[in-house]
Amino acid sequence: MARRSEHTREQLHDLALKAAGRIVAREGISALTARRLAAAIGYTVGSLYLVFRNLDDLILQLNAQTLDELHGQAREVAEKQPDPRKRLLALAGAYVRFAGEHRHLWRLVYEHRQPARLPAWYPERVARIFALIEGALTELAPARRPAEIRQAARALWSGVHGVCVLAMTGRFDDSSETAVQAMASLLVSNFLDGFVATARGARRPAARRRVK
Amino acid sequence: MARRSEHTREQLHDLALKAAGRIVAREGISALTARRLAAAIGYTVGSLYLVFRNLDDLILQLNAQTLDELHGQAREVAEKQPDPRKRLLALAGAYVRFAGEHRHLWRLVYEHRQPARLPAWYPERVARIFALIEGALTELAPARRPAEIRQAARALWSGVHGVCVLAMTGRFDDSSETAVQAMASLLVSNFLDGFVATARGARRPAARRRVK
Repeated sequence: MARRSEHTREQLHDLALKAAGRIVAREGISALTARRLAAAIGYTVGSLYLVFRNLDDLILQLNAQTLDELHGQAREVAEKQPDPRKRLLALAGAYVRFAGEHRHLWRLVYEHRQPARLPAWYPERVARIFALIEGALTELAPARRPAEIRQAARALWSGVHGVCVLAMTGRFDDSSETAVQAMASLLVSNFLDGFVATARGARRPAARRRVK
Repeated sequence: MARRSEHTREQLHDLALKAAGRIVAREGISALTARRLAAAIGYTVGSLYLVFRNLDDLILQLNAQTLDELHGQAREVAEKQPDPRKRLLALAGAYVRFAGEHRHLWRLVYEHRQPARLPAWYPERVARIFALIEGALTELAPARRPAEIRQAARALWSGVHGVCVLAMTGRFDDSSETAVQAMASLLVSNFLDGFVATARGARRPAARRRVK
């Protein structure tokens, strides 16, 4: 076990963040206390407060780390797929897989109560994941305005997120990875078919058209 | 405050369930303990175990009560809307509204760890809500097989659910009721456009078609 003062402040910060990630990944957020974390890295609780303002600050940084990991996987998937429709389906698949593999860390990203004013570096982490989705949507429907693309990306990804949430809490008859992936694909394909068709100005029967 | 033995077993059951609903609605699930509930209705903790097997049994019955309430509101909305597309949009709107108004009770329905073997009356409560969605989808795309309709209903509603989850945890820039309703509508309309178009055998460019 490491001893006090063996590390620089920056090293201590990184060490603590990694250890926090391991604790949450294995046991969920309820296991993460300052005392437990300090013990895990062989430092005092006081030392943690040299590098994190409080537990909320630490969790926000942990969530940023999870988002970076998700972004890395998403970008890798996206780079392999020049076709924007296939790319969006692959991104949804990567999201479902990530949620299943990093269950506790993924839950923490959206369940943790965030401070009223987020530091600027946090929304940037979210934005660069959405940039991948928005990029593909723009390629699919180039006539759409940026605000429409932005809104569509959020609506679609909330949907994919919902599939993951219900899968995680065992609310489907079949919560196997295959079944959940199929559910996410079904949602994404139908959404994209609709999004592209209405972008092209495809006609819907008048009675339906009025609803929009 | 009621005194012991003033009620029949059935009355005690209903009294406790209603009180449990009030406690959760106001303070969330963490406030619901047997002791607290017993005190709220003026009975001993032991009396509760005459009418509920345990706290999990009580929560399952409470969730069934919430689903009944949701079903009642959904059916009312559905009955007013003969057009199936408008009906699905209205049902999504009702779901978003219900989640916002009964935040804690709604969360409990999908967050509570369910027993491995659910009593038959529970999935029936879920099924009759889905029946409203499946009915409208069948009217919209009568050529689809029942299994496809069933799957589409689940994919679409997981999506609407995801919009609610992210709205509740404040993950949208704008979490106002109007903005969240717009997000849900966008998801539902695009999905339905796609679902109806592909049901009609509408052509997609070959490169895209292969993905399905």
